[in-house]
Amino acid sequence: MQPFDLVIRGGTVATATDSFKADVGIRGSRIAAIAEGLDRGKREIDARGKLVLPGGVDPHGHIEQLSASGKMNADTFESATTAAAFGGTTTVISFAAQHVGMSLKTVVDEYHEYAKRGAVTDYAFHMILADPREEVLEKEVPPLVKAGHSSLKVFMTYDRLKVDDEQLLNVLQAARDNRAMVCVHAENHGMISWMGKRLVKNGYIAPKFHSISHPRVCEPEAFQRLIACAALVDQPIMIFHVSTAEGAAVIRQARSTGQKIFAETCPQYLFMTKKDLDKPGLEGGKWMFSPPAREASDQEALWQALALGDLQIISSDHAPYAYDKSGKLMAGKKATFKQIPNGMPGYEARLPVVFDEMVSNGRFDVSKFVEWTSTNPAKIYGLYPKKGTLAIGSDADVAIWDPKKSVTFSDKTVKDRAGYTPWKGKTVKGWPVTVLLRGEVLVENNKLRGKPGSGEFLARKAGAAAEPLGRATLEFDPKRNFGAKLR
Amino acid sequence: MQPFDLVIRGGTVATATDSFKADVGIRGSRIAAIAEGLDRGKREIDARGKLVLPGGVDPHGHIEQLSASGKMNADTFESATTAAAFGGTTTVISFAAQHVGMSLKTVVDEYHEYAKRGAVTDYAFHMILADPREEVLEKEVPPLVKAGHSSLKVFMTYDRLKVDDEQLLNVLQAARDNRAMVCVHAENHGMISWMGKRLVKNGYIAPKFHSISHPRVCEPEAFQRLIACAALVDQPIMIFHVSTAEGAAVIRQARSTGQKIFAETCPQYLFMTKKDLDKPGLEGGKWMFSPPAREASDQEALWQALALGDLQIISSDHAPYAYDKSGKLMAGKKATFKQIPNGMPGYEARLPVVFDEMVSNGRFDVSKFVEWTSTNPAKIYGLYPKKGTLAIGSDADVAIWDPKKSVTFSDKTVKDRAGYTPWKGKTVKGWPVTVLLRGEVLVENNKLRGKPGSGEFLARKAGAAAEPLGRATLEFDPKRNFGAKLR
Amino acid sequence: MQPFDLVIRGGTVATATDSFKADVGIRGSRIAAIAEGLDRGKREIDARGKLVLPGGVDPHGHIEQLSASGKMNADTFESATTAAAFGGTTTVISFAAQHVGMSLKTVVDEYHEYAKRGAVTDYAFHMILADPREEVLEKEVPPLVKAGHSSLKVFMTYDRLKVDDEQLLNVLQAARDNRAMVCVHAENHGMISWMGKRLVKNGYIAPKFHSISHPRVCEPEAFQRLIACAALVDQPIMIFHVSTAEGAAVIRQARSTGQKIFAETCPQYLFMTKKDLDKPGLEGGKWMFSPPAREASDQEALWQALALGDLQIISSDHAPYAYDKSGKLMAGKKATFKQIPNGMPGYEARLPVVFDEMVSNGRFDVSKFVEWTSTNPAKIYGLYPKKGTLAIGSDADVAIWDPKKSVTFSDKTVKDRAGYTPWKGKTVKGWPVTVLLRGEVLVENNKLRGKPGSGEFLARKAGAAAEPLGRATLEFDPKRNFGAKLR
Amino acid sequence: MQPFDLVIRGGTVATATDSFKADVGIRGSRIAAIAEGLDRGKREIDARGKLVLPGGVDPHGHIEQLSASGKMNADTFESATTAAAFGGTTTVISFAAQHVGMSLKTVVDEYHEYAKRGAVTDYAFHMILADPREEVLEKEVPPLVKAGHSSLKVFMTYDRLKVDDEQLLNVLQAARDNRAMVCVHAENHGMISWMGKRLVKNGYIAPKFHSISHPRVCEPEAFQRLIACAALVDQPIMIFHVSTAEGAAVIRQARSTGQKIFAETCPQYLFMTKKDLDKPGLEGGKWMFSPPAREASDQEALWQALALGDLQIISSDHAPYAYDKSGKLMAGKKATFKQIPNGMPGYEARLPVVFDEMVSNGRFDVSKFVEWTSTNPAKIYGLYPKKGTLAIGSDADVAIWDPKKSVTFSDKTVKDRAGYTPWKGKTVKGWPVTVLLRGEVLVENNKLRGKPGSGEFLARKAGAAAEPLGRATLEFDPKRNFGAKLR
Repeated sequence: MQPFDLVIRGGTVATATDSFKADVGIRGSRIAAIAEGLDRGKREIDARGKLVLPGGVDPHGHIEQLSASGKMNADTFESATTAAAFGGTTTVISFAAQHVGMSLKTVVDEYHEYAKRGAVTDYAFHMILADPREEVLEKEVPPLVKAGHSSLKVFMTYDRLKVDDEQLLNVLQAARDNRAMVCVHAENHGMISWMGKRLVKNGYIAPKFHSISHPRVCEPEAFQRLIACAALVDQPIMIFHVSTAEGAAVIRQARSTGQKIFAETCPQYLFMTKKDLDKPGLEGGKWMFSPPAREASDQEALWQALALGDLQIISSDHAPYAYDKSGKLMAGKKATFKQIPNGMPGYEARLPVVFDEMVSNGRFDVSKFVEWTSTNPAKIYGLYPKKGTLAIGSDADVAIWDPKKSVTFSDKTVKDRAGYTPWKGKTVKGWPVTVLLRGEVLVENNKLRGKPGSGEFLARKAGAAAEPLGRATLEFDPKRNFGAKLR
Repeated sequence: MQPFDLVIRGGTVATATDSFKADVGIRGSRIAAIAEGLDRGKREIDARGKLVLPGGVDPHGHIEQLSASGKMNADTFESATTAAAFGGTTTVISFAAQHVGMSLKTVVDEYHEYAKRGAVTDYAFHMILADPREEVLEKEVPPLVKAGHSSLKVFMTYDRLKVDDEQLLNVLQAARDNRAMVCVHAENHGMISWMGKRLVKNGYIAPKFHSISHPRVCEPEAFQRLIACAALVDQPIMIFHVSTAEGAAVIRQARSTGQKIFAETCPQYLFMTKKDLDKPGLEGGKWMFSPPAREASDQEALWQALALGDLQIISSDHAPYAYDKSGKLMAGKKATFKQIPNGMPGYEARLPVVFDEMVSNGRFDVSKFVEWTSTNPAKIYGLYPKKGTLAIGSDADVAIWDPKKSVTFSDKTVKDRAGYTPWKGKTVKGWPVTVLLRGEVLVENNKLRGKPGSGEFLARKAGAAAEPLGRATLEFDPKRNFGAKLR
Repeated sequence: MQPFDLVIRGGTVATATDSFKADVGIRGSRIAAIAEGLDRGKREIDARGKLVLPGGVDPHGHIEQLSASGKMNADTFESATTAAAFGGTTTVISFAAQHVGMSLKTVVDEYHEYAKRGAVTDYAFHMILADPREEVLEKEVPPLVKAGHSSLKVFMTYDRLKVDDEQLLNVLQAARDNRAMVCVHAENHGMISWMGKRLVKNGYIAPKFHSISHPRVCEPEAFQRLIACAALVDQPIMIFHVSTAEGAAVIRQARSTGQKIFAETCPQYLFMTKKDLDKPGLEGGKWMFSPPAREASDQEALWQALALGDLQIISSDHAPYAYDKSGKLMAGKKATFKQIPNGMPGYEARLPVVFDEMVSNGRFDVSKFVEWTSTNPAKIYGLYPKKGTLAIGSDADVAIWDPKKSVTFSDKTVKDRAGYTPWKGKTVKGWPVTVLLRGEVLVENNKLRGKPGSGEFLARKAGAAAEPLGRATLEFDPKRNFGAKLR
Repeated sequence: MQPFDLVIRGGTVATATDSFKADVGIRGSRIAAIAEGLDRGKREIDARGKLVLPGGVDPHGHIEQLSASGKMNADTFESATTAAAFGGTTTVISFAAQHVGMSLKTVVDEYHEYAKRGAVTDYAFHMILADPREEVLEKEVPPLVKAGHSSLKVFMTYDRLKVDDEQLLNVLQAARDNRAMVCVHAENHGMISWMGKRLVKNGYIAPKFHSISHPRVCEPEAFQRLIACAALVDQPIMIFHVSTAEGAAVIRQARSTGQKIFAETCPQYLFMTKKDLDKPGLEGGKWMFSPPAREASDQEALWQALALGDLQIISSDHAPYAYDKSGKLMAGKKATFKQIPNGMPGYEARLPVVFDEMVSNGRFDVSKFVEWTSTNPAKIYGLYPKKGTLAIGSDADVAIWDPKKSVTFSDKTVKDRAGYTPWKGKTVKGWPVTVLLRGEVLVENNKLRGKPGSGEFLARKAGAAAEPLGRATLEFDPKRNFGAKLR
């Protein structure tokens, strides 16, 4: 047998299906062998007592992006992907965010520049469409999807970003024509705006009123509407950051009809509640994100929705804004909750907090952890089998977890540039002590070994979402509602 | 590296998650390596252009068993497992079938004798309880479960086998006390009996009236009742051979509440309809099984239920009865449909007909095929990771499929002893040309290489059903409804 | 204008639709005029400040009937209908109760004798079928239905009364053939038996364990099964005494499909909970009836089900057993809850306790009170328009309510022969101070004016249930499932 | 007894509950007696063989109103209410239609002028809010509701009329503050706009494409959103002109939760389908209204929804536009379907076409006919008991129907000013041959006896919708979502 550049020896290897003791042999950037008793490699990593998992794939994060209110978020690609790497994630999909009036092509080019300069993990882009005018959809989207940007994102809320139902239908149609996925932030804008104005008018301005300003029903309502639009166009969709039991129930119902609905949730919805916003002064702003965290009963409902396959992914929705004595992103001490930017850092903590609950606490097994945080995002977004698993020929993106290592989150050790962690004080058991990207060590001994710019862009194939769950429910149907009715 | 006893070279290896090109190295009875460019083994199998899959696990088949009407079915363990082996299946779970008045221990001992004498595949037993009297449940069941018989089966219909609701609750409670699974043939007995009598009384006696005598609603009704009983006891259940869209919908609804419901269907429900019973004379009897095959729209609903995870397994419900000029099991030419035994041979055809549709026709991918026919039955019934996957350390049970080989089913080539195949004339693409059991060749060049009795009994651990889908929904809850209410 | 025998002057007349001030003029036994300023009648009743309502129709009560355990209940027709009359009810439908082996004709004849001897209100019979053997269904049922006994009742629980699913289907089919209604006590017998045995075996024998022995799920399960059977036969059914929110939800769902389901509840389910059973010693037995009262949240769900039309009737399920120092029906001080007869007196209190909540407390208006307690039972069971309304030509059965009169229930004033009232100590506002039957005073000044035997038998027409809610959902469909499938 | 001004003699009187033979005695404008054998009145109407019903109440019609595209519809109050009167309707609620920028008070004043000038039936107004700006809601709405305009209407579609979700919430809140009902035209605007543009762009411009441009899902989607908004505010709503089975199912589901949802449908949805639009040239425009008529299966679903109480009213949505050789409202021969005004005449035909099916064809009984077309609209909109029934003291608004009279609709006999009837050629059995308004003859011998302006304005009380179906589900809840959450 040819020699290995690297052998990870004696660990417990896990995929979304199996876990077993084996050595992993790497040649160049790829996995070449999974076996008992491999010959010695040029380099060896002792993984005895450790879990050898595919590197995490985080498909939802905002990097070097303007907030909904027009201010830049805290991270650069360097800081953000460094945080991801320390948390065991080796691939991120962030956003190329168009605002009104912008050329989408220009936006994508700019984000390519940012990423090329700083990324230490591999990366790809969802293209945010805040201005889906005809020329953008007809001229810009097709070549960009072909160039590997096979997912579009739209917002149904936020004054400066939201699309109305007709625009949403246009985006869904453009996605269908180009076999791209459509990701959606789905909350009812009118309800949020109406509630916010009533609250502020009545003097309820503290951060904790943020959760009240997003009434629970704004989520299932928007899901219903989005799903109805997607049904009309017959286009697969990904519903971002599900936060409520009612929202999960809407998704389950729609999937029952065979509609191609995917969905994700995030650690903040699995571990936090609206009570986290209830802090003195401006500090609640640290836990301000949209949709807001809900109740403990929602957490249980979301775990169940994951177990039942209604949700397929746990992403981070990383969206850091610096917090200092002027509040979040210097919103100022007199800021109402409507003026504080929404979002919190998430890249680093995503996998450890989920591992702690799923694997260390035994809520699920390690294969489910791999499936929801790495394999499913890779498959759904067209990165698989290069990313998302430990298989012969796949990229040697590996996170070696020490299941016994305990870590307590602290503001002092954060790798991103938010300046704080919303998980401060939480102790988790299990940590990715060594992380490899394409066969090279990225993180080791709590040090970053990767170089800014060493991350690579991942062109993604279109139509991927059709595949993992079978043709029956998920392939693009060649007969459209529209055409069929005219016959 | 230590040498391999056998190397399967150059095939496409697939698990329930991945598929990739690799060699598979076997030492003794177990898989030792999955890799690129393995060193030459003592023996080599050329798998280029072929799919290298885990051997099938068929958890539902009747061997050397009395029919509901008290007559012996057609197969011995030798003929039945030979048929399974030729169809790519290396593990079967058949039944140890108690009838009224029998000792369960004696029954199990007898089936051990039968199997030891003839089996060429590995095997285990579900224990059928037709007489769940107190001594059986309290004295016999506990040691038998501990001895590896970790699943019980009951019938809700058939005059001589059925349990009533109170008996069903007793069985569920005994299973809960012993952490065993309960498998159920769930149809409403009263409806079937009532319809059958009315039909026969009115002269509707041909085999085709069998399907009418099992009205559709008898399935969802029984599922509802069974699920209510299981909820009362908080006991996981496996619903056998789902045949209707309404039945699948009941299961989906119950799973939505977090109840631990598993379910399977069979190729006859995915590919046949009630029209197959409509043949001249007695021939329809060949397609007589219960529940009967339904409509084309049910087939679509069942595929969708599989895709959505509501059903997890495709088993065969192998139950062969010899057919000759006196009809099925010599029922005689004047037999009404109520007198013809229910069941058809299924071991050999199960995997090829499903592979043909899922993989060759592209309805799903090969990983889903592996999951539903091998990995899921192994995990749910406590055979995993020894069986059900290709992983380092697992038994080297391998089916090597030639995806280009076309085979047409014919009565002349059947390996079981039914004397006919209900798939006669159907051509499938894809066939398991070489089959290994624990590292030894079982089938090769269309010849059986295994010896009668070379199959091994598999003692199964209890409580397995709790594990594959996570603690949240599936573990045995230590707090019982009953106790909780008394506090 | 011809003179009136009786004028009820100056009251507020109410029907299921309207309420308005008017005089009511009666000639002979029937209502002849509803008008302003009627001429003076031969007799006058001053109804100023009072409500003039149709006499109550109570379609569910047991009189001179053997309990499930074979003992006679407390009432005679005289005592029972006297209690009903004092409570504002002028028509009852009680039971002619067959036990196993009996001739139904003989049973009906006997109950005719009992009633003729004692009844002070008008009456009709539901025929209980505990032994629906072929000769009963084919020979006895048709002429009895033609003779005006147009409703059958079956029990799905109680050891000595229950029918199994096949018997249930036979009864439904016989009802369909004769256009009779089928009323059902629907609880899952196996669950109740199983729970009861486990409780008693573990020493939980006090009356309060009665409610635990009827687990909630035994109601929706039995409803589902009953509804499935009725769908198979395409036969309208009346589900008796709904007690749970889940049961009501099953009914609503089935009605959504257009199936002809009617249902009732009783005051004990609207005002009592399982806590009423929790009394020292044997006293809880006074509140022992089946199904048992449930939770406060079920009360709300049942009111809502009435408001939504899912339930159409509030009946009493009058079933009195004498209570003395030996306990209920002399069950004895060592009786387990399984040995205490089920049932409580209900004829007298039904209307006052419901009026108090609906009208005096304002939960609904007086028209809804009339609809659920008089008009709907009359329409559904074939007594309308003779009974159940105040319309020209209808029987002058009138209850004149004083909405300001307060009455506190006491054991001392009960008119039936149970010897106690389960409503003891409850004060209601509103009481039927004068009651007329066919134009004659039945109760006045707290005195009975009717004579034993003055009540008349009411022959009821078959097929009535088809009418009140329209052909679309409720008429007997001439095409049967069974025949249709054979074509 | 005092003499009667008018006696309707010998007919069959029907209310929403009862029907029976009786004479009806009228004094002045009100009903004074319903009885057998009334003394002779000053005037007599022979009603033998006829049905004596309350005059119809039609709560949905557009009179002297600008269309969505800004053009005046065909009718004046004189022509419109004349058509209504000939069809047996004695009360209409039409619209006072604000457009953007207008003062609501001014609009209402103008409609008062129009109506006073011409109406021959009694009338009231729903106030359409196309511009619910703060001053309108806070300054104008409260006094107008107090003045008897206790219902608001909004559109969720039409470019010039629609409100967005935030405006909708503001209207719902204003209604709640003033205890007014909110009526809604609920269709998803984005879907309709998107489909319309795609159709026109592709050359699909004929009238028949109108139905395709309103995809089915645009109705249940809008219902879901509207219901979610109403739930947030806890405000009762009336959903106008339900057209689809899916829409009806959404309503049923929402009512199951206890939410205060009322709904209506119209004859066009019960008797027409989208095929009626498929006529040569511009003629399909005659059947162009929104939502469009759907399929035969929807008709069945709507009848069932009425039977189940999910819908409570059959209104006309009278909205006539003149049709001549230049097409509908002179849209011109080259008009695309987007340029043709939506609406058809409906006042005259509403009751006869519904009577024909419900009563003459026997689908339901006459009481249901009265309930859905007269009693329920009167109760829900605050006109009861003055209107909507035949009770002592109610207005003597009476329609005397000859159930044997057959009439064939023809363009030549239409009373409104559309110039055509969409029911042309249809023959109905049953016709209101004599119509009374407040005791005066309005129509007789096919002649109008009323004078323009003799109709009276009906000030309606607020909060009425709480009453007919009981406090439990329908009263205005004093605890608001909003306030509750802040505690």
